[in-house]
Amino acid sequence: MDKLIVVKIGGNVIDDDETCAAFLKSFAAQKEKKILVHGGGKLATKLAGQFGIQQQLVEGRRITDNETLKVVTMVYAGLINKTIVAQLQASGCDAVGLSGADGNVIRAHKRSNAKLDYGFVGDVDAVNSTFLNTLLQQNMTPVLCAVSHDGAGQLLNTNADTIAQETAKALIPFYRVELLYTFEKAGVLENVDNENSVIPKVTSKNYAALKKSGAIFAGMVPKLDNAFAALHTGVARVCIGKAEHLDALVAGTSGTSIVHE
Amino acid sequence: MDKLIVVKIGGNVIDDDETCAAFLKSFAAQKEKKILVHGGGKLATKLAGQFGIQQQLVEGRRITDNETLKVVTMVYAGLINKTIVAQLQASGCDAVGLSGADGNVIRAHKRSNAKLDYGFVGDVDAVNSTFLNTLLQQNMTPVLCAVSHDGAGQLLNTNADTIAQETAKALIPFYRVELLYTFEKAGVLENVDNENSVIPKVTSKNYAALKKSGAIFAGMVPKLDNAFAALHTGVARVCIGKAEHLDALVAGTSGTSIVHE
Repeated sequence: MDKLIVVKIGGNVIDDDETCAAFLKSFAAQKEKKILVHGGGKLATKLAGQFGIQQQLVEGRRITDNETLKVVTMVYAGLINKTIVAQLQASGCDAVGLSGADGNVIRAHKRSNAKLDYGFVGDVDAVNSTFLNTLLQQNMTPVLCAVSHDGAGQLLNTNADTIAQETAKALIPFYRVELLYTFEKAGVLENVDNENSVIPKVTSKNYAALKKSGAIFAGMVPKLDNAFAALHTGVARVCIGKAEHLDALVAGTSGTSIVHE
Repeated sequence: MDKLIVVKIGGNVIDDDETCAAFLKSFAAQKEKKILVHGGGKLATKLAGQFGIQQQLVEGRRITDNETLKVVTMVYAGLINKTIVAQLQASGCDAVGLSGADGNVIRAHKRSNAKLDYGFVGDVDAVNSTFLNTLLQQNMTPVLCAVSHDGAGQLLNTNADTIAQETAKALIPFYRVELLYTFEKAGVLENVDNENSVIPKVTSKNYAALKKSGAIFAGMVPKLDNAFAALHTGVARVCIGKAEHLDALVAGTSGTSIVHE
């Protein structure tokens, strides 16, 4: 079975043109079949501000009203996605940028929550692995942004970590899938201010204890929960680490590996 | 040989939500293999204004500086393209939205003109018909926006009529291709204010005379030049007409047909 790497690139990496360009060169050079998933960084928030759209964040999640959804679609599916695709093409990687609506790649439903209306935010129902696999089989590289659709004409703002995880899971029947979350830190850190305090391995056994002791920074918990969820569905390996270390992350010599044990 | 219709949808149609939605339903219902090409309408100009970007138009063409290119990419490849794709998906049409960078679909070069720098404007060099045909063979419908790339990482603003024409031409080896330019008028009009004055047929024989007599409105000339260029490359039929009349345009009972004779 061929190997497939699903790489999520974090917003802070996208915000820095130089770091992003270096990452994309390194990503393009990976020989394995690969999929890139990206969110939006600060650009969407900045543009919404320029348009005079008030941003609401509740529990770290953006409330997506109709105007915010338009900005998200413009920035994620438009500017960022196409800039990434053009750069990958320039490095010899035959990238194809997709929102979840394109080829019905990511179908979701609008999140319903009795306590809070998140607006046009989607929770993923299905990934079109047939279409993604068709592209992969032609040595093309899908580049997915954090916009899905509901199949009834509504675009939905969707968490990019979740899209990466669901995409990895959907391709398990076809590939030995590895899921790499890359961001600005070298991995899961014991001390959030010390880049040398990377926890090399989080297992299902030590995770609860690490959380309880506060060794794992609260902001990392959703990422790790996603990672364990992915492992449980049959992803071969999940790794969290620095975007600039992509080669070493792929080789397994950098970052934090999340494993069963 | 299967029939393929390449349909260009004009900016004024996109600007009107209701007309656009009706057009997309009718487009989705076409049984033939099909490709949709769209430009941007007034939204890009409006947004650029909101950002305080000064728009320059010379001979009806927008000068595309770097900031304008960003707006164009956001609006054409992001908001408009994905809104169209989500609506087509909702009508059972398996649409895939693409900029020219995606799968290297439209490769272009930056226009060089000794007299005038158009900025990041591209003239088309090559259409990746292999990839488009792969999608068509899987009953998918490519939706192309008016953004191309140069293969070296640069996105380029590109005339949508030209993209439609070059795409139609590139698929001639695989299909009997018909090219339909749809906009807000019922066809090429003898009197621009009279919707009933449609010229049903423009031939290579009467075109020069119609131009000379002023019977053909100056704004239509580039469209007709494109149409004749497409005919010369082997497109089976070119038709110009009203977006709301798509069924009749496909059937050949509405609009202006541009033919050799």
